[in-house]
Amino acid sequence: MTIKRVAIVGLGLLGGSLGLALKEYCPDIVTTGYDSDPETRRRAAERGLAGTICESASGAVAEADLVVMCVPVGAMGAVATEIADALPRQAIVSDVGSSKASIHAAISAALPEHIVIPAHPVAGTEQSGPDAGFASLFQHRWCILTPPDDVPEEAVAALRTLWEALGAEVEIMSAEHHDLVLAVTSHLPHLIAYTIVGTASDLEDVTRGEVIKYSAGGFRDFTRIAASDPTMWRDVFLSNKDAVLEMLQVFSEDLTRLQRAIRRDDGDALFELFSKTRAIRRGIIEMGQDDARPDFGRSDHEG
Amino acid sequence: MTIKRVAIVGLGLLGGSLGLALKEYCPDIVTTGYDSDPETRRRAAERGLAGTICESASGAVAEADLVVMCVPVGAMGAVATEIADALPRQAIVSDVGSSKASIHAAISAALPEHIVIPAHPVAGTEQSGPDAGFASLFQHRWCILTPPDDVPEEAVAALRTLWEALGAEVEIMSAEHHDLVLAVTSHLPHLIAYTIVGTASDLEDVTRGEVIKYSAGGFRDFTRIAASDPTMWRDVFLSNKDAVLEMLQVFSEDLTRLQRAIRRDDGDALFELFSKTRAIRRGIIEMGQDDARPDFGRSDHEG
Repeated sequence: MTIKRVAIVGLGLLGGSLGLALKEYCPDIVTTGYDSDPETRRRAAERGLAGTICESASGAVAEADLVVMCVPVGAMGAVATEIADALPRQAIVSDVGSSKASIHAAISAALPEHIVIPAHPVAGTEQSGPDAGFASLFQHRWCILTPPDDVPEEAVAALRTLWEALGAEVEIMSAEHHDLVLAVTSHLPHLIAYTIVGTASDLEDVTRGEVIKYSAGGFRDFTRIAASDPTMWRDVFLSNKDAVLEMLQVFSEDLTRLQRAIRRDDGDALFELFSKTRAIRRGIIEMGQDDARPDFGRSDHEG
Repeated sequence: MTIKRVAIVGLGLLGGSLGLALKEYCPDIVTTGYDSDPETRRRAAERGLAGTICESASGAVAEADLVVMCVPVGAMGAVATEIADALPRQAIVSDVGSSKASIHAAISAALPEHIVIPAHPVAGTEQSGPDAGFASLFQHRWCILTPPDDVPEEAVAALRTLWEALGAEVEIMSAEHHDLVLAVTSHLPHLIAYTIVGTASDLEDVTRGEVIKYSAGGFRDFTRIAASDPTMWRDVFLSNKDAVLEMLQVFSEDLTRLQRAIRRDDGDALFELFSKTRAIRRGIIEMGQDDARPDFGRSDHEG
């Protein structure tokens, strides 16, 4: 089973990057693209985010071996319904959404006869829209596939080969485990970042101008994450509700413990936690999952 | 009043950067340096972090017009006591600590006859020690001075001129207001980052290896902040306890509200908050307080 024609539905950061990456690293693959927003389709055509930009989702998928849905998590079911009649029977259906169990349920309900292999490339930036994508987004990043048990192995292998060709390393796990892991490594960090930026912008005694001015003390890192696409993230939290709430509960308990340590002047407890957390950073650097330069290399740029 | 001789006590990231910046931008100023750790003194001499590296704090300050204490907040009082006898009567005493009211109290108690002008350059990276500093650290960053009312204006002006020569923009406010502003823009973000990294490293259902592997979804940004110097940050939280606990309280209430919105599937509330937080990011970029490139420019580097 070889994938020769890929349809991309949704041409924002992820969909656009997928199209550009396919053009760059798999030039033999024919790509079609569609986005429900006419302005996005226009920009997508200008930037060449797909070989052909179609005027309907049905038109884009009509000859596809693989459809990759790159729309907000909450829109997956509706897109699947929209393409159901036009989609070739043997086509593989996949996506790039940040939660997996609920997406799989929504797509399978709309396309019960198709092979559905949910996927999540763990890559992105805080930017969104048709101008945000770039071909190297998936290089050295993980792409998690969560194939249900009844999916043919060769279909999974074909999808794996495709993502590997784009520079990603592929990992396979259950949708449920994915949702728990990403709740910690992605969803909770976003929730916390959105909260603290919201907190800081509504204070009585400190103005918003001061918050902006003195943000280099740590706050600015959170604002980058909290500048991510609001629709996408609203959908992520609602679709992975249970795992997110579970992780939030653990976090809140840990925060209460730290609060108590400060209140009681328990410097040893603070020092112990602050020393432990350095090891994780080292692991991330060693695994090549972040830039080792101090301050993400920002100071090089500024200096 | 002109500052011609600067003594730097503590030669880590901030002290070392101060020494290198003085050498680069104020070559006529004579610098002396001291660190209580012999190994740090050795490296400081190799890197030329100060013109002369002395074997005692008293030796370093003996002829200074200005002493800048670059030690953890909790050590300021002890250092001030240590230099009290050797310090010239007319020397200005300053520091680079992240909280100001408690530092001012500690230094003034030990040096009641001296001009004390607490300072806080809002700049840094997650690295520490004598190898971490660089001359351009303060370029385009704010430096907040919190002079008490009874300090001579010309002393404040001299210190301002010095920081401006190193590339910083100087702002003056009360120590109390500083401590409140920084509690939001720096201390709370660090506390939250330390907490979430701790939470993630101690989970039952998700391994530490998985957390590291999939950290690019947002988590890795927090690990950078949570890799900051443990001693420094322990002291910051204990010395700015009231303001930190106050901000933490507001944050916790906001987090509870968001938790409730997720539990109740209130997508509108989530969308509203997530849209609002983008404005702050725009303000930070427009003010030149962060790198405008997506992902802090990391993707350029990786790609």
